Amino acid sequence: MAESARESAQKARSASRKLQALATEERVAMLNRIADALLANETEILAENAKDVQEAGDKISQALLQRLVLKPQKIQQLAEGIRAIAAEEEPIRRVISRMEVAEEEEPIRRVISRMEVAEGLTLEKQTAPIGVLLIIFEARPDALPQIAALALRSGNGLLLKGGKEAAHSNAVLHKIIVEAIGPMGADLIHLITSRDEIADLLKLDDVIDLVIPRGGNALVSHIQANTKIPVLGHADGICHVYVDAAADLDKAIKIVVDAKVDYAAACNAVEKVLVHESLVANGGLGKIQSALQDAGVTVHAGERLQQLQPDSKLPAAPSARHEYSSLDVTLDVAADMAAAIDHIHANGSGHTECIVTEDAEAAEAFLRGVDSACVFHNASTRFADGFRFGLGAEVGISTSRIHARGPVGVEGLLTSKWVMRGSGQVVAKDSGVTYTHKKQRIA
Amino acid sequence: MAESARESAQKARSASRKLQALATEERVAMLNRIADALLANETEILAENAKDVQEAGDKISQALLQRLVLKPQKIQQLAEGIRAIAAEEEPIRRVISRMEVAEEEEPIRRVISRMEVAEGLTLEKQTAPIGVLLIIFEARPDALPQIAALALRSGNGLLLKGGKEAAHSNAVLHKIIVEAIGPMGADLIHLITSRDEIADLLKLDDVIDLVIPRGGNALVSHIQANTKIPVLGHADGICHVYVDAAADLDKAIKIVVDAKVDYAAACNAVEKVLVHESLVANGGLGKIQSALQDAGVTVHAGERLQQLQPDSKLPAAPSARHEYSSLDVTLDVAADMAAAIDHIHANGSGHTECIVTEDAEAAEAFLRGVDSACVFHNASTRFADGFRFGLGAEVGISTSRIHARGPVGVEGLLTSKWVMRGSGQVVAKDSGVTYTHKKQRIA
Repeated sequence: MAESARESAQKARSASRKLQALATEERVAMLNRIADALLANETEILAENAKDVQEAGDKISQALLQRLVLKPQKIQQLAEGIRAIAAEEEPIRRVISRMEVAEEEEPIRRVISRMEVAEGLTLEKQTAPIGVLLIIFEARPDALPQIAALALRSGNGLLLKGGKEAAHSNAVLHKIIVEAIGPMGADLIHLITSRDEIADLLKLDDVIDLVIPRGGNALVSHIQANTKIPVLGHADGICHVYVDAAADLDKAIKIVVDAKVDYAAACNAVEKVLVHESLVANGGLGKIQSALQDAGVTVHAGERLQQLQPDSKLPAAPSARHEYSSLDVTLDVAADMAAAIDHIHANGSGHTECIVTEDAEAAEAFLRGVDSACVFHNASTRFADGFRFGLGAEVGISTSRIHARGPVGVEGLLTSKWVMRGSGQVVAKDSGVTYTHKKQRIA
Repeated sequence: MAESARESAQKARSASRKLQALATEERVAMLNRIADALLANETEILAENAKDVQEAGDKISQALLQRLVLKPQKIQQLAEGIRAIAAEEEPIRRVISRMEVAEEEEPIRRVISRMEVAEGLTLEKQTAPIGVLLIIFEARPDALPQIAALALRSGNGLLLKGGKEAAHSNAVLHKIIVEAIGPMGADLIHLITSRDEIADLLKLDDVIDLVIPRGGNALVSHIQANTKIPVLGHADGICHVYVDAAADLDKAIKIVVDAKVDYAAACNAVEKVLVHESLVANGGLGKIQSALQDAGVTVHAGERLQQLQPDSKLPAAPSARHEYSSLDVTLDVAADMAAAIDHIHANGSGHTECIVTEDAEAAEAFLRGVDSACVFHNASTRFADGFRFGLGAEVGISTSRIHARGPVGVEGLLTSKWVMRGSGQVVAKDSGVTYTHKKQRIA
């Protein structure tokens, strides 16, 4: 009988505890072995992937098919990405033992803060792996090795539930990774192929700590609505660029066009350009509109722009809050920066917003005032991405306000743990020790 | 018509954004005004509290009644606690602007990490308030000002749902606090007195970011089982003390007795003492048992102890996983430290565990190997507490693995936010900039 998803989760937790106990070097070696194994088994991976592509036939969209197909170059990139994650600074860094006699270094957890609570009683806050992650992903088989690498690096156990359309590819990638890890591989990373459906997996809130959906809005919204397990991800990506009165128009045009055209379907692509009212009269708005149109973008007029220019031939935006995910964008006018910020809070998704301005004070006010996961000054919203943020890779981008926000790499897969070291201290109605609560510097 | 809880949550979010924009000094002043107002209105508070106590009559347990009663000394302590939170280092610390021309300090967010992404393109990870918190608390009216102070300090909006038994006390405390805050008070902190029941509040996952239950296991379990909003707290507190072969027996006895007797009903009280097998023969176990019994504790035999000493007169423990919350404890035997850790993982609640040993290596292995929110060496489990941890106060103790773990103070009420500052950079299919990804030191 196939192992149940619950059993898999329990094994993954126990394996993750063993993984944490290993030396850094061993986790790094596992990642490098995975990279090697992907390259060594390229032929097999491509053959299994071809089966998926053939079975998919014309049952899936062209866009989905493109994501499904693996090519030698893609496998090369995957291997390189995993080596990069291996080469990164260990998130569970070496700390110096408190024992003054033996200041040896141990490959355990990173110390976030340290305090002397009382004489001879110290308290550390350390990072620690979250435990067991459930990743639900569609189409893209290349997400599997990336996610596995991030989970290994952060000491977490993993349940993977891939889409049926990539069943052959996922199976071969999982087999290769598990073998490359070695003895604990099969317990650590589970590809859920049993008949457990997503709905059943989402009920396992007592054995799974975090769900990360990687897929379209529909998948993410469905998961968010149907589980008590914390979900790390985003459904919508309704990003804004606000072009301030003091914007350098050339920069504004460059940024707005890039933020839409670089990859129109991405979650970090701009969906609405808000322009300061003063740019209506001085022609700035018109130039931005033309530049977008010249780049092949269909510009839709927002409510305020429709009022200001009732004779414009621009199609009306479907609503104040709309994600096109295509070469379409809403252009609208804001009376001032405060109005732009209010508009963003009312209609955004808390993903990524940008201000274009040469006014440093206005920029800082915007960065401070906008309550989104990512807030940029004079840079394309497309930079909101794990690789571009220097995280090596990402398991996803979170618009949740709890735990990790924005692109989530290894650090976002860690939680914390309090470690206290004493010499027999007791509370004794708070008269057992004299509290000093001295914060200590971390090296 | 009374404002709905949804409307309250929306107002709280908007007010929290205004609160964040204030200078540190203003938030500190608010807290000090609240402390003053509590003292100035002591008579009114005590009068309202007396109504609650009278109405409760003998309808509530003696323990609950004790928590309900406010006394002048308690109000004095509350005021002092709030002044301490005010005096603490601002979690949203001053950072130095990147603008080299004007290295002025701004009272905004604390920078967690900083990186040069490419030339002229920097990225910061900053702390940011979570947004809107829902606190559901039973009986203890003194929790209201404490929680309000922590929320104010961390820039969060607040919905408070107190128990009916403290309705008069909560109302007067809420009124005093809101008035002391000033104009934004009423929007920032809402006492839910409408007919919205807890079940209705728990459905507001689109406008509430975090629920913190402060009450008994039944309340917490109910909330965890009935909401999609992340819950920060703990249902069980099944803490273990493991007495190692190399323990100093005097220290072990002192710690074990304190961990149970200091406050037997507390969530950080020990519920099971695991003793290394070698202490059975050498009499250590017997001495620990006697010391506990002498301190008035009923010692129950765990499974392995029952097998080893079938003739002992100790009552059997109800189960391997049991929270007494009373002057009872389970005593059991572990073959070695690895067995103790496995036992803890199998039967603990991930709250607080302690090892008593003089063997530094064993201690470090236990601290590293035990996967709980708090892990101690040679210190009473009763230290697991926001005040004792130097957090000033706590909104609760979390055994969730996401976001904050262990005692949660101001820091646990913050999330993060990415801030990028550029000069017109675009992604342009990743050829727009040359990525440097240089981590920078934070002052």
